Amino acid sequence: MTVATRANARTAWGARESLNAGLRVAFSSGTVMGMTVVGLGLLDISIWWWLLYGVFDVAPEEIPPIMITFGMGASAMALFARLGGGIFTKAADVGADLVGKVEAGIPEDDPRNPASIADNVGDNVGDVAGMGADLYESYVGSIIATMALGAVASLGLDSITALQAIQVPVSIATIGVLCSILGTFVVRAKGDASQAVLLGALRRGTYGSTALIAIGSFLLVILTLGSEFLGIWAAMIVGLIAGNIIGYFTEYYTSDHYKPTQLLSNEALTGPATTIIAGMSLGMLSTLIPVLTVIGATLAAFFLSGGAATPGLGLYGIGLSAVGMLSTLGITLATDAYGPVADNAGGIAEMAKMEPHVRERTDALDSLGNTTAATGKGFAIGSAALTALALLAEYGNKIKEAFEQLDISPLNLLDPKILIGLFLGAMLPFVFSSLSMRAVGRAAGDMVNEVRRQFREKPGILEGTERPDYAGCVAISTQGAQREMVVPSLLAVIAPILTGIIFGPFTVIALLAGALTSGFVLAIMMANAGGAWDNAKKFIEGGAHGGKGSDAHKAAVVGDTVGDPFKDTSGPSINILLKLMSMVSIVFVTTVIALNDLFIRIFS
Amino acid sequence: MTVATRANARTAWGARESLNAGLRVAFSSGTVMGMTVVGLGLLDISIWWWLLYGVFDVAPEEIPPIMITFGMGASAMALFARLGGGIFTKAADVGADLVGKVEAGIPEDDPRNPASIADNVGDNVGDVAGMGADLYESYVGSIIATMALGAVASLGLDSITALQAIQVPVSIATIGVLCSILGTFVVRAKGDASQAVLLGALRRGTYGSTALIAIGSFLLVILTLGSEFLGIWAAMIVGLIAGNIIGYFTEYYTSDHYKPTQLLSNEALTGPATTIIAGMSLGMLSTLIPVLTVIGATLAAFFLSGGAATPGLGLYGIGLSAVGMLSTLGITLATDAYGPVADNAGGIAEMAKMEPHVRERTDALDSLGNTTAATGKGFAIGSAALTALALLAEYGNKIKEAFEQLDISPLNLLDPKILIGLFLGAMLPFVFSSLSMRAVGRAAGDMVNEVRRQFREKPGILEGTERPDYAGCVAISTQGAQREMVVPSLLAVIAPILTGIIFGPFTVIALLAGALTSGFVLAIMMANAGGAWDNAKKFIEGGAHGGKGSDAHKAAVVGDTVGDPFKDTSGPSINILLKLMSMVSIVFVTTVIALNDLFIRIFS
Repeated sequence: MTVATRANARTAWGARESLNAGLRVAFSSGTVMGMTVVGLGLLDISIWWWLLYGVFDVAPEEIPPIMITFGMGASAMALFARLGGGIFTKAADVGADLVGKVEAGIPEDDPRNPASIADNVGDNVGDVAGMGADLYESYVGSIIATMALGAVASLGLDSITALQAIQVPVSIATIGVLCSILGTFVVRAKGDASQAVLLGALRRGTYGSTALIAIGSFLLVILTLGSEFLGIWAAMIVGLIAGNIIGYFTEYYTSDHYKPTQLLSNEALTGPATTIIAGMSLGMLSTLIPVLTVIGATLAAFFLSGGAATPGLGLYGIGLSAVGMLSTLGITLATDAYGPVADNAGGIAEMAKMEPHVRERTDALDSLGNTTAATGKGFAIGSAALTALALLAEYGNKIKEAFEQLDISPLNLLDPKILIGLFLGAMLPFVFSSLSMRAVGRAAGDMVNEVRRQFREKPGILEGTERPDYAGCVAISTQGAQREMVVPSLLAVIAPILTGIIFGPFTVIALLAGALTSGFVLAIMMANAGGAWDNAKKFIEGGAHGGKGSDAHKAAVVGDTVGDPFKDTSGPSINILLKLMSMVSIVFVTTVIALNDLFIRIFS
Repeated sequence: MTVATRANARTAWGARESLNAGLRVAFSSGTVMGMTVVGLGLLDISIWWWLLYGVFDVAPEEIPPIMITFGMGASAMALFARLGGGIFTKAADVGADLVGKVEAGIPEDDPRNPASIADNVGDNVGDVAGMGADLYESYVGSIIATMALGAVASLGLDSITALQAIQVPVSIATIGVLCSILGTFVVRAKGDASQAVLLGALRRGTYGSTALIAIGSFLLVILTLGSEFLGIWAAMIVGLIAGNIIGYFTEYYTSDHYKPTQLLSNEALTGPATTIIAGMSLGMLSTLIPVLTVIGATLAAFFLSGGAATPGLGLYGIGLSAVGMLSTLGITLATDAYGPVADNAGGIAEMAKMEPHVRERTDALDSLGNTTAATGKGFAIGSAALTALALLAEYGNKIKEAFEQLDISPLNLLDPKILIGLFLGAMLPFVFSSLSMRAVGRAAGDMVNEVRRQFREKPGILEGTERPDYAGCVAISTQGAQREMVVPSLLAVIAPILTGIIFGPFTVIALLAGALTSGFVLAIMMANAGGAWDNAKKFIEGGAHGGKGSDAHKAAVVGDTVGDPFKDTSGPSINILLKLMSMVSIVFVTTVIALNDLFIRIFS
């Protein structure tokens, strides 16, 4: 966040000179974010490994399950950052707009508005810190889950040791970091480069890193495991390809360069109601390809890595496909994280009354960022599904261990206890989204009251003679975020534990599977509907259907406002929720089984 | 539909005299609908039974699986009626409003609007025919599925024959029809009765019938099966109670007599965006209690009827709980179906310029209808979940039969083939809803063009000197409905068959389970959000937040318009989709297994 906030003004300054100069600054700050996330992720994993393996002398195959507690911590923190960040930024945004723009009639970002600073802070809290924590969690989660599955898979095989199986995901991630660093050097262009050339430069960086990672991990698998394990490498490549497919279709459904969002903007001509209906419909339809892609990737990763003969190896392959998908995170996150920086640079250019071409250039950078961010979102969503699947498999392993048997026949899909778990799980993401959207509404209500109070008690603010209490509004947003994220977060922890105590661990597996499938679909729907509404509004602001201020624009703004909590609060939080619930289940498995025994004994 | 359309004017005429007189006419026409649905349902089942058992001499236990093809037909027809009806009515409604009210500036229901007749027709097509076909399908579906499960359960037991197990659901339904008829006689009040008294009369009818059914079915089970099967009776009662709980909470979340909808109407003060967000949030949260209720009912029905010792009997109990829930359909549907009649009576009172107190009384009847309709909707949703569960179990039986083994270990929840089925299933209701909402939008677009064309080509229409081409608009709605319902309906048929051919029947079970759980939640969310938006608008029209014409009202109208396809097209169609997919899977099971074998042989 420090780098991002400092880079804002510098990007605006760079954009005075040229588009390329602006990109260099913004992209550099994005690179800091990308490399910090992957670097800290690998560092943390390494420290834990060194402590447990080197200092406490724990057997290698026992370490990954212990490290899942570390993943649980990262997940809980990510949920706080996504939810809290989303609540913070939306409360400030809505509060500033409703009282400032609508009631007091002052322009957006006007310094007379007490909530304006909270609004600017919120952009960094939500988009930078929230996204960073989210992807840090995805990154370490996928690596740790795969390490755990590798350890279990190696138990049944002579040709691979636990240590070998555990090191593969970490090594692939390390190769990914190195190749990402190399890739960032390619992202440069001549001073007078156009937007298309810059997009080409960004793409060159990502694709170059991807190719290098593919080669590097091929050599890794050949040299450490031998050529009979090339299927594992193939599983990893499957993940990389799947991430790109989901990313492409995220862009297709949400960018105003493509039909769906353009057609959505047409609906704005007939008012807000048709805009909302069409956006919901678009979001729902956009779940088709990601689901088919995840299904294809799951099956391909499972069978390519040898799951038909050795199921454990197949599950390891599914985990590796998630690791593969996220191996380029260093550079994809860099191309993703520079978007908010460019966005804020535009705001600064406006507030500082810089020349109009500066704002045009930062807008061009921002629009470029939206395109590359779509790919990043695709990676986050796809890897969440695959990681959650891997964690589900690991939970299955834990149960097998606890019951000391390998046949887990109570997992029959037609058993009532499994079916009710699926029902409970399918419902959870909906209730969670409802709670998080309500939280945004309540926090925004507090902000509205605070801004109204300041305007009422200090009439000088609106005349520009009195300084508003900016800190008061920041405090309201902060308190709102901290207070409102408690209940939805508790849901993630309590739901699997309570289900386990009452119905036993098999119902918990069904709960996790139900939440994963319905939550994955709901998250994509919310994220893509929100993105499409946002860009349909921008498309109209770009001159379509009467441009800014037209009735169509007003309708599109309604869509955009509905989309904000969809795409920035509830949608991305669901991805984290799914993984957090899985890790909570794994960490507390023995406790829950014991309490379930007690529960049954009491009630029978 | 004939009775409903004729009762409209008569209800308006009756309401001139008194509230009670209006209720008598409207409720009588609703009773025709209720009794037609249950009567035809039992008649059709009886005819098939007579043909197969009496004429073709088929063994009793083989008849229910054959009759599932009959259920499939009813389901397909119900999907057409719900989807087609929803598309018809919304196309006419939106078309009439957008061009008439917004562009030409003429009032609602103005005879100069060419789409006004199509709009009136649509109310009957969607609300009367659509609802009737929907509940007919629920009714026969639950009975047939339970007959099939009873036949299978009896195979493993000495104490009960297939014939006995098959006759129980039909007999309970028959008792239900008789008790419903008795109940309708209680629905009467004095001429000057208030709304509360009339509600009491309606409730007396329903509760009286329910009590009679409970006693009658108790005697039935005791006399035909013996007291050791009283658990089966208890399962049926569980269904009745669960239906009432879901109905109560449907009312709680959607009626403006309770907090949630009142709070939703507050959100209209800050504009359409907050109204939409709060409505979505309300809909999502309202899924909690119905899911918990269905879970509780499933477990209670399963274990009460002896599922712990004999799983087959437990599944039979789940089916019977659905039959029990729908046993009061004769009278609950009567209290449900009179709502649209009262609604249309109000329109006629307006158009015919009758005294204002007539409209007030029809509005009171309509509002009464909304309260009782909520219970009816709860029964429809709850029974859909339980029936779909019963059908899922029956599909499991079919697979066991096909593979000639009772152990179906491939149903392990952690098998990749099961997980991908869950993913596919969770996605289907979303894609289906997207397609049905799009269909409404497209058909409405055609209507807009037609109304614009008539206004342009016949300028005399707006001046009142030329007669609009009403039939042209009806034809547009009809064609739109017929054309647009093809693709979503095909999805229901093709998805399970194609999944079965490619991945085999075990993945189909997972597909059905995934669709059932995520679809159930999505359907409740859409139905309740839509209902709450509708009533929040009515609450404001009743004088809150500035009343009709205020900004809050405009925002509430946006919510209501978004809610229309939610609650009248997509939401209820999902319930039918779930059952239709299950029945298609059961009917084509052997074909699909054979084609799957072929598919595997070709690709390996």
